[in-house]
Amino acid sequence: MSATRPASSCAPRLVALCGGVGGAKLALGLERAYGGAVSVVVNTGDDFEHLGLHVSPDIDTVLYTLGGRSDLERGWGRAGDTWQFMKALHELGGETWFQLGDRDLAMHVERTRQLRAGISLTEFTRNVAERFGIAATILPMSDERVETTVITPAGALSFQRYFVEKQCIPVVRRLEFRGAERARMSDAVAAALRNPGLDAIIVCPSNPYLSIDPILAVPGMRAALKAAEVPVIVVSPLIGGQAVKGPTAKIMAELGVPADSRALAAHYAGLIDGMVIDESDRADAAALDIPVCVAPTLMRTLEDRVRLARTCADFAMQLRDQSARAEGAGR
Amino acid sequence: MSATRPASSCAPRLVALCGGVGGAKLALGLERAYGGAVSVVVNTGDDFEHLGLHVSPDIDTVLYTLGGRSDLERGWGRAGDTWQFMKALHELGGETWFQLGDRDLAMHVERTRQLRAGISLTEFTRNVAERFGIAATILPMSDERVETTVITPAGALSFQRYFVEKQCIPVVRRLEFRGAERARMSDAVAAALRNPGLDAIIVCPSNPYLSIDPILAVPGMRAALKAAEVPVIVVSPLIGGQAVKGPTAKIMAELGVPADSRALAAHYAGLIDGMVIDESDRADAAALDIPVCVAPTLMRTLEDRVRLARTCADFAMQLRDQSARAEGAGR
Repeated sequence: MSATRPASSCAPRLVALCGGVGGAKLALGLERAYGGAVSVVVNTGDDFEHLGLHVSPDIDTVLYTLGGRSDLERGWGRAGDTWQFMKALHELGGETWFQLGDRDLAMHVERTRQLRAGISLTEFTRNVAERFGIAATILPMSDERVETTVITPAGALSFQRYFVEKQCIPVVRRLEFRGAERARMSDAVAAALRNPGLDAIIVCPSNPYLSIDPILAVPGMRAALKAAEVPVIVVSPLIGGQAVKGPTAKIMAELGVPADSRALAAHYAGLIDGMVIDESDRADAAALDIPVCVAPTLMRTLEDRVRLARTCADFAMQLRDQSARAEGAGR
Repeated sequence: MSATRPASSCAPRLVALCGGVGGAKLALGLERAYGGAVSVVVNTGDDFEHLGLHVSPDIDTVLYTLGGRSDLERGWGRAGDTWQFMKALHELGGETWFQLGDRDLAMHVERTRQLRAGISLTEFTRNVAERFGIAATILPMSDERVETTVITPAGALSFQRYFVEKQCIPVVRRLEFRGAERARMSDAVAAALRNPGLDAIIVCPSNPYLSIDPILAVPGMRAALKAAEVPVIVVSPLIGGQAVKGPTAKIMAELGVPADSRALAAHYAGLIDGMVIDESDRADAAALDIPVCVAPTLMRTLEDRVRLARTCADFAMQLRDQSARAEGAGR
């Protein structure tokens, strides 16, 4: 942490690490609270080629959510989307296990076309974010392919096969982030983390195994987070030992880890400086050896999202100030 | 023509050469009249890659028309199609000059995927025709790419740029069928033309320059039509010196050719044994040195299509029988 820079009076500069739906809720809160001061580094380990199209589920969830175009009821895809393409594809005998709405499809077709034309995923994402009027910067963790692969007793499953087709039913033995060793952190992500004005890094309440670990698997990412010398805080995706949505608790159980704040802190050990946990997990606080902020973390409304975003930023700023005082006292 | 085979009592075996909308109307009539005895060889010179997808406009028009899925009012695309994809694509800044309906898109995505997987256009088309319950065999003229290119005073235009984007406004100086010299007639087309049971070949009332000439440009096609030794008849796309739809008459004028039956017969000279012309062009008959059948060729209803199909087949059978008698008399 930087002990010398005075607290800024303007919006704190934040980098958020984020997966899909759950993480995007907090990313939206951060964007509404702090606008262009926010960069969201998004998991692309779920990306896959489907029907010959490059699909980036988490990027799209963040784009649709921050762009005011997400389907809030369904929890994925575009608001008000229609399904004529899927019906016609079914009629042609095509693969229909992964649903692509008619509007959503434009994103995949146009992204695929631009990627083939040599435009990077980072650049394509920036252009779409601009068109959607998003103030925050949305950054794929890498422009190279990383494939989150779920190792089950019956063998390896690509992420979407596990998550969508098999509905997270197979037992998770291990996760592999194939290609990660060859992936390069994008220049834009590196720049966001090296920004001397950066105030904090917030790990959104995304699935640590499926959504955050792929980001951390990009070579240099962990080192860059540490080198940033700002507080790194994680928002627990657990509420009362359960995930709000998705298989976090189930996977923790399958990996032999208790689904609680301590296990989560251990998972992120050496990387995080503080944790935000839900009020229902208040009892976990005593068992944690890092600073904890207890707050309502369930985000039902936009106000909930913005409130939690402010709580996270305030908590991180406190940690920074404490650290500055401690370093000052040590002189 | 085969003089020895007796006239069959079952449905005549027919091969039709066909472009898009106008030709597909007669192809539908032929299919309703003679079912599985009909093979339709379809122009693929209009095929192009758009948004990274392989689009085959004439193949699709024939599939949708014979499969009962064509939009009869609009004249192209799928019945009842919707435009959410196009709206979303516009929002992303994508190319929107070529309209792709949400249902129609499934065809292009699935075809592109299958072609990349090594499945031929012929095989893909056969599978779709089967799924659409089409009795006739629909055959792309070739599995290799032929690109109809319109040479205008301002330079070369790919077919769809000329036809859709420029709405056929540029003056046509010349047409090129790029890649034709390297294209191979598909085995299925060759087999249909070599079928010893074949009774006649019917050139549908498609644009001779834009839709039929690309088929004839495939190496070996003209020779195969002649080698079939059955009557080849062409249905004039002109009615009273005008095309029902499309730029046939305009192109003929630009190429310095009068838009009449004689010019059309001259265009197909050496290839055709007879011509079906509309009642409104009855006066042209005297100027033609090949057998002529005068009939109402405007196809408004399904009954019109079936009636014209029967007229064509009957005319071709007459020519065959006359030829047989002539050969018999010459012995």
